[in-house]
Parts: sequence; structure tokens; C-alpha cells
Amino acid sequence: MQAFSITIAPRFYETDAMGHINNTAIAAWLETARVRFIESLADGALVDERSWILASVKIDYLSETFYGEEVIATVTDASPGNSSLTLQLEMVQGGRRTVRATAVLVYMNFAQKTPERVPDQIRERLARA
Amino acid sequence: MQAFSITIAPRFYETDAMGHINNTAIAAWLETARVRFIESLADGALVDERSWILASVKIDYLSETFYGEEVIATVTDASPGNSSLTLQLEMVQGGRRTVRATAVLVYMNFAQKTPERVPDQIRERLARA
Amino acid sequence: MQAFSITIAPRFYETDAMGHINNTAIAAWLETARVRFIESLADGALVDERSWILASVKIDYLSETFYGEEVIATVTDASPGNSSLTLQLEMVQGGRRTVRATAVLVYMNFAQKTPERVPDQIRERLARA
Amino acid sequence: MQAFSITIAPRFYETDAMGHINNTAIAAWLETARVRFIESLADGALVDERSWILASVKIDYLSETFYGEEVIATVTDASPGNSSLTLQLEMVQGGRRTVRATAVLVYMNFAQKTPERVPDQIRERLARA
Repeated sequence: MQAFSITIAPRFYETDAMGHINNTAIAAWLETARVRFIESLADGALVDERSWILASVKIDYLSETFYGEEVIATVTDASPGNSSLTLQLEMVQGGRRTVRATAVLVYMNFAQKTPERVPDQIRERLARA
Repeated sequence: MQAFSITIAPRFYETDAMGHINNTAIAAWLETARVRFIESLADGALVDERSWILASVKIDYLSETFYGEEVIATVTDASPGNSSLTLQLEMVQGGRRTVRATAVLVYMNFAQKTPERVPDQIRERLARA
Repeated sequence: MQAFSITIAPRFYETDAMGHINNTAIAAWLETARVRFIESLADGALVDERSWILASVKIDYLSETFYGEEVIATVTDASPGNSSLTLQLEMVQGGRRTVRATAVLVYMNFAQKTPERVPDQIRERLARA
Repeated sequence: MQAFSITIAPRFYETDAMGHINNTAIAAWLETARVRFIESLADGALVDERSWILASVKIDYLSETFYGEEVIATVTDASPGNSSLTLQLEMVQGGRRTVRATAVLVYMNFAQKTPERVPDQIRERLARA
């Protein structure tokens, strides 16, 4: 698939007393990258992004992230399973790779709280992308 | 009324690069103090705390707050208007007063998005407290 | 002065169980608007933005802010006192004014923890702007 | 080792528009559990907790977490490597296991930005615990 990127300007309150961006802010940016990616697949009314639940996330903090320079967060791969979608993500700041992450989302019928098969439109869109 | 207090243990991610607790964490703690106070009035099913909307908040940052020592947040006064409730709050860390705040909540019929008169049970409870 | 604006794309985690953007996220966005405005005055090395401390903030929540549409946060006025700077801010989403705020910053010698006179370069820059 | 637990009262702003606690709040609570655990090892001046850097975290979201009931976060295991410490964590709310996580911390000489061997006092303390 074609990589999907967003740009994040670190916010001052996301720093911590060690002088860098706190790890929890980066977990939060990953949510933003995931949600924007899902929205990019949705093409308006195709899916409700709220039906995707985060089942699991693994974050490798490769190097420090600092205030004052933009971060590019990229979804480098998205592989659908039956009712899941596994995303590979990375973040780069000033040419340095700062974060690598894997997230597993589950497509949920949220009213019934049961997983559902990832819709064919999403699969086709991922295959084409 | 009798003062209502909660204790907050600052979290490391709430610090910022200046080495102290960031101002936005304190705004968040004030929400927690307000909500717990409203819940203490509610006595279970009396009111739905989600019906109170924050209309306005004024926060004076009197001195720095640091990681590593608990903060006592106190609602020192609560004055009902017709559909509003004005709270006075303060925070103390290690004997130092760090924050003074005023918050105005509005009692909302959230389905209809219209303000409603503060219920008599709440008024009586505030008068008694 | 000329108004200074930034654009904020609400993040999903900034919503709350009432379905709108939580009040604490808006307090955080105000920090971002203040810091970017101060940085815009600083012109690189002119001042260290970390020398400005938030002394007080008043936030009026005029209407709900929602996920899914950008917010424009504007510093509409900035008035220097001796060691302080009073900012007027507002936020607009989809043509609706959602927030009005006043923030008082103090220019601090952070090593000595004492207020200092706002530098003339800043005053001139504000007068020109 | 003996399990180390802390209790977390979910805060209202940690909910999201899906009506439950947002995944990013849980990533933040994990930081609090890690830091408190490290502080419990430190016995005052033994180590500086700021020397531990988060290298990696894996979080499995096993079931939803809700506002209104306390969460117990437990460090169930801590295994030192040469310069690392691998923690196993879990969270329980109302008897339901909601989160399972693994975090890898690295003991850093933060001035020199190089990893250092985990001190013997920490190893002994972990062995005894």
C-alpha cells in the first residue's frame, strides 16, 4: 500500500521534566495517526471509524522526540485479518526515526460488542492503495 | 458549606520541560475536583453529574506545583444561581497554596441542550452542607 | 495588533463521554496558541519562550466543540504591563465562536524565579504588529 | 517477586466519545504504575527514577475500562537484564482484567545518554522482593 502520513507539531505541555516529549504523548499521537488513516479509508460514509477498537499496541521508542520540530507519523503497512487490521507505523523527526509501532485494531459492531468481518470495500481499498 | 477535598498525586507525565507540573494538568485536576464534588452531592441516583456543563473557569496559578508531593484540592464554596452553580476552589501542596479557581457550572437538560433550574434537593443539600 | 491565529485539528482522545471535546483539551489548546504567539514575537533568539509563566487564565466555554472539524484559535489582543502580558484569545469552529479567554503571562527570570520587565524589543514588536 | 499495586480512580476527562476510558489514558496510567514501582525500589536516594527510560511498551486492551470504578494496576514481574528492566503489568477493574502490558525500561546515564548496568542494589532488591 501507499504510505499514509500526518504531520504533528509537538505541543509544549507534551514535554516532561526530562526535557523531551513524554512517552504518553507519543501513544496519543499514534491514536491520531490511526484514526486519520481509518478516516482516509472511509471515504465519508463508508465506515464509522468508531467501530474500530484498539486491541493491542506495541511501541518502540527508538530515540528521543523534542519540542520545536515537526514529527511525521506514517502508516507504512495495513494488513487485514478476518475482523482485524494490523498497522505498522513509524515516526520521524528531523530525519531521525524516533518511533516504530504496531497496532492491532478490531472491527466491532459496537452496539452488540462483537467483532465483525472487515468489510469488502475496506479490503479492496487497502489492496488498491 | 463544609469544604470538600480530594487528594491528587501528581503524575510524572504531568510535568513539563520547565521541571514543574504543567498548567494544563492543573486545569484537568480542577475538573476532577468539580466532578467528585458534584458526585458527593448526588448521593447516588439524585442527579446525573453529566448534566452539569462547565460554562466558565478562572484559574490563578499562585505558585509552582511539583512532582513528588500530594496536592489537596478543595471546593471551599458552592453558590447556586437559577440554573448555575459557582464553585470556589483552591489547591495546596506541602502547605503552600498553589492554585485558586472559580468555576461556573450550568445544569443542563443535555438531550434538549437547554439550561434547567438547579433541583431543590441539590439546593437543600448545599444549604445543609 | 494584527490577530495571530493557529489551526487545531481536534484529536479523538480529546473527546469525552458526553460526545464533545472535553474542557481540559481546550485549556491545553490555549497553551499551544499562547506559546506559538510568544514564539512568533521571539523571532528566533530574541527571547526564550520558557521565560513566560502563566499567572492566570479565564476561559468562557461559549458553545460545544466537536471532533471532526478544525478549530481556529486567535490571539486578538496582547497588552504588556510592566512584567506581564495580557492576551485575549478566542476559538471558532465552523463559524461558531466556541471559546473566549483571557490569559495573563509573567515574564520571569526563571533561574532567580523573579519577574522582570518585558523587554523593549517585545514591546516594540507588539506596538508594530 | 511480590506484586506491586497502585489504585487509579479514572478521571472524567479520560473518557472518550465511545463512552469508555480512552486507550491513551491507559498508556498514561501504565507510566504511573512503572514510576511508582521504580520509586518503591529506590528507597529514597538509592537511584534517581529519572534515569530509567522507556524503551518499549506493549499493551493488550483485553476489555473496556469505564469511568466510575477504581482500577488496580499491578506490576506482576520485573526481570533485570544488563542495562534493562522488563516489567509485566496488568490492570483489573471490578474483577475484570482489562489490560495486560509489558514494558522495557533502560537504565540510562542521562547526562551522557548512554545505558548503564542496572545497579546491584536494585538487583538485590528485586531478588529479595
